[in-house]
Amino acid sequence: MPYPYHQINDDDITYFEALFPSNRITRKESIKKEYFHDEMPEYGIFPPDLYIEAINKEEVSTVMRYAYQNNIPVTARGAGTGLAGGATCKYGGILLSLMKMNKISQIDYENLTITVEPGALLTEVAEVAQAGGLFYPPDPGERTASIGGTVITNAGGMRAVKYGVTRDYVRAIEAVLPDGEIVNFSSNVVKNTTGYDIKDIIIGSEGTLCILTEVTLRLIPAPKYTWSIIVPYDEINACIETVPKLLQMSFIPTAIEFLEAELLDIVEKHLNKSFPDRNGKAYLIVMIDGSSRKEIEQMINEASAICIESGAKDALICNTDERSTSVWSVRAAVLEGMKADSVAQEECDVVVPRARIADYVKMAKIIGKKYGIRIITVGHAGDGNIHTELLRDEQLSDEQWLSNTTACLKELYALSKELGGQLSGEHGIGNGRLEFLEDFIGKRMYRLFQSIKLAFDDKNILNPGKLVVLEKIDLEGIK
Amino acid sequence: MPYPYHQINDDDITYFEALFPSNRITRKESIKKEYFHDEMPEYGIFPPDLYIEAINKEEVSTVMRYAYQNNIPVTARGAGTGLAGGATCKYGGILLSLMKMNKISQIDYENLTITVEPGALLTEVAEVAQAGGLFYPPDPGERTASIGGTVITNAGGMRAVKYGVTRDYVRAIEAVLPDGEIVNFSSNVVKNTTGYDIKDIIIGSEGTLCILTEVTLRLIPAPKYTWSIIVPYDEINACIETVPKLLQMSFIPTAIEFLEAELLDIVEKHLNKSFPDRNGKAYLIVMIDGSSRKEIEQMINEASAICIESGAKDALICNTDERSTSVWSVRAAVLEGMKADSVAQEECDVVVPRARIADYVKMAKIIGKKYGIRIITVGHAGDGNIHTELLRDEQLSDEQWLSNTTACLKELYALSKELGGQLSGEHGIGNGRLEFLEDFIGKRMYRLFQSIKLAFDDKNILNPGKLVVLEKIDLEGIK
Repeated sequence: MPYPYHQINDDDITYFEALFPSNRITRKESIKKEYFHDEMPEYGIFPPDLYIEAINKEEVSTVMRYAYQNNIPVTARGAGTGLAGGATCKYGGILLSLMKMNKISQIDYENLTITVEPGALLTEVAEVAQAGGLFYPPDPGERTASIGGTVITNAGGMRAVKYGVTRDYVRAIEAVLPDGEIVNFSSNVVKNTTGYDIKDIIIGSEGTLCILTEVTLRLIPAPKYTWSIIVPYDEINACIETVPKLLQMSFIPTAIEFLEAELLDIVEKHLNKSFPDRNGKAYLIVMIDGSSRKEIEQMINEASAICIESGAKDALICNTDERSTSVWSVRAAVLEGMKADSVAQEECDVVVPRARIADYVKMAKIIGKKYGIRIITVGHAGDGNIHTELLRDEQLSDEQWLSNTTACLKELYALSKELGGQLSGEHGIGNGRLEFLEDFIGKRMYRLFQSIKLAFDDKNILNPGKLVVLEKIDLEGIK
Repeated sequence: MPYPYHQINDDDITYFEALFPSNRITRKESIKKEYFHDEMPEYGIFPPDLYIEAINKEEVSTVMRYAYQNNIPVTARGAGTGLAGGATCKYGGILLSLMKMNKISQIDYENLTITVEPGALLTEVAEVAQAGGLFYPPDPGERTASIGGTVITNAGGMRAVKYGVTRDYVRAIEAVLPDGEIVNFSSNVVKNTTGYDIKDIIIGSEGTLCILTEVTLRLIPAPKYTWSIIVPYDEINACIETVPKLLQMSFIPTAIEFLEAELLDIVEKHLNKSFPDRNGKAYLIVMIDGSSRKEIEQMINEASAICIESGAKDALICNTDERSTSVWSVRAAVLEGMKADSVAQEECDVVVPRARIADYVKMAKIIGKKYGIRIITVGHAGDGNIHTELLRDEQLSDEQWLSNTTACLKELYALSKELGGQLSGEHGIGNGRLEFLEDFIGKRMYRLFQSIKLAFDDKNILNPGKLVVLEKIDLEGIK
């Protein structure tokens, strides 16, 4: 550990055990192994020295105040469903769970907002909104994520095409700074130019700048009709080349997802879920919503015509709950399917300009072949965020897998950069993509990241070693 | 000047005159007085030591590299239409105009974006979008603003109710850092979680962190129909209390503007523009857009019914260009009208939660009376951003006006804070609201602002003394 953190000792434990009831504090030896990693154990397994569950912001503040004074690293954690190795204790210290801070306010109809503690689940928030006749659009695949986790990672999901990402729905944040101070970033207002927009740099900061204790989220009127079309193609290029054309319609589609037929085989084989159509080699699923039946019919017709003109074999309308469920449950199961179908996985979460998606998918396949790695592309074609899954088959040795995936990822990131894309579209940097960041963004930008980290966390105690590394460098040398 | 900047001397001038042709560099004694202030000379008149017009990012970089090495303050300037005293040389140094960097790219239809240099005018960008069948929604009153100015101040405007503010349309930024390095914040992608979201802290940073050299803006499909209703009320409270009800309709209105009849008199008297209805004491103007004639008729009916139920005398539909022009040209003229109708003006740009607008307006009137200041409230009721105009009538002495406006503003800011609002909704802090900022956001948050400023601008040479003050404090003491 290059930075000399204080190693938690009996005195520290005594201090915290006097403050927290025994069912909310766990010593190192009894901490459950699930807290050593997130959904990607490939990105590091790190045992905390102490596990604490907070129930309010004052407790979070108390923990941070002590940690700041005593130079102890703290990592906040939600549901642990991240895909970047973010919510783990890379340098030991305290894992501070926010899952017991899970209150959801009543809907504020006059401001069209809802106020939520970070440990509430995304799915619960969406349900409360829906039950109240409103709509919370962000929908990353993982609906058991905590809402705080989705805010601190700026979770995306497929509806970003029309509705944007989590950032677009966060109106205000209450948080605890590394020194324990409780602060508010913006408030329940629609516009704000009161100095620096700190709220937005917190969103997506992966727990490295502050700890969320409450978020106020914007809700919108619920769309009255949501239909989808399933569009099979004989050929992957024609399929993916349809996407930019769909983005030039007279309206914005809700989602445009992309699936290769190979994935449908995998999901059927391992999870026994079948897709309503199996005639294509590649599919688009286009989701559309509208305010009247007539409007949505027109939209569906416009989208279908574009797909057929672009070489689709068909455009099957899903306008019943049953049909929609059968489509979207397969889409939701692809990650689980791929895990079942391979020995190990790596994942590339690049995002490229939407005009370059076809180029990216074509080249990604070629790069995968070069390294003998099975590559499946899947996901959010409509927003340029194609998840590129690298699957390890049994014949590869540990060393081959490691060196080939690293080399393959480097080429995929270089490709993304060349196409004007980014390193991560929605999963974040965390620990898993950290080694690729400095090369991608450049030295000067990396230094700016370090300066920003230090502006908030001058002792580098909050989720250290994630998103940006300070340990390598002389802390005093950064301005 | 507490921080010892280098005073520009003949050697510096010689250096720059060798680099810039004589028609793009002006010595102190010949600089036009209009560059000493923005649209609010009340917020400070500051002569620069040197005026330079850049034509590309390399020139901006060259200026900053020299300024950084030599410790010379630099303020970038667009069209100078700001309302916070932002784009001025508070500590002298170089005023760097970006108005000759005004290229506008072709529309990128596949990505639905347009790439623009900072000196292009907002109105030109909007026109190019419109001519191309698309829509750039941000619409601050001042359409002769430079697009760079609107981005660096996160300009708002009335369409924020439905479409959000400038921030929501900025997809990527190219900028020059204080040390002269040219960097990119994000790229033409829809999602991005590649580390800290620097782009969003740049937006609204008022030229204190970097200098914009290019922005890529998102365009959206143009609405097919845009109609308005003019809604007169006998009484200001009933008028303003209608707003939260309009926000609970089955759709989001484009804009909800609020006008007192007194303003209509002023605009008619001084600018000879008449409003199509004069039966009310207060008015809402509700703008609505939709995708079909049937849809917009339904929306207009829904909105009209809510207004009538809430005490409106009428709801007059504007669905012709002629009628719309007569309404919106009066609305656009109110600031000019108030300037003509008073000896001096001060302006309070608070934003409050939309549920608290009525409370704010009622109390603001009472506060104004207390200080013998004529207060007119006007503006963006639909987003809680009510401009509170303080007008100086002739009977007030200079001292009375100064002390009374300061006391009055303090109460208005305290009121906004009590209601959960913010100090500035869309005009920013600049120099004019600086004295009120630390009190409003608190000492710890102010310190965070200072740390962020230093993370970008460790020598405090970029537009110093705006948005946040570093001069007061020991620069080395901030972490």
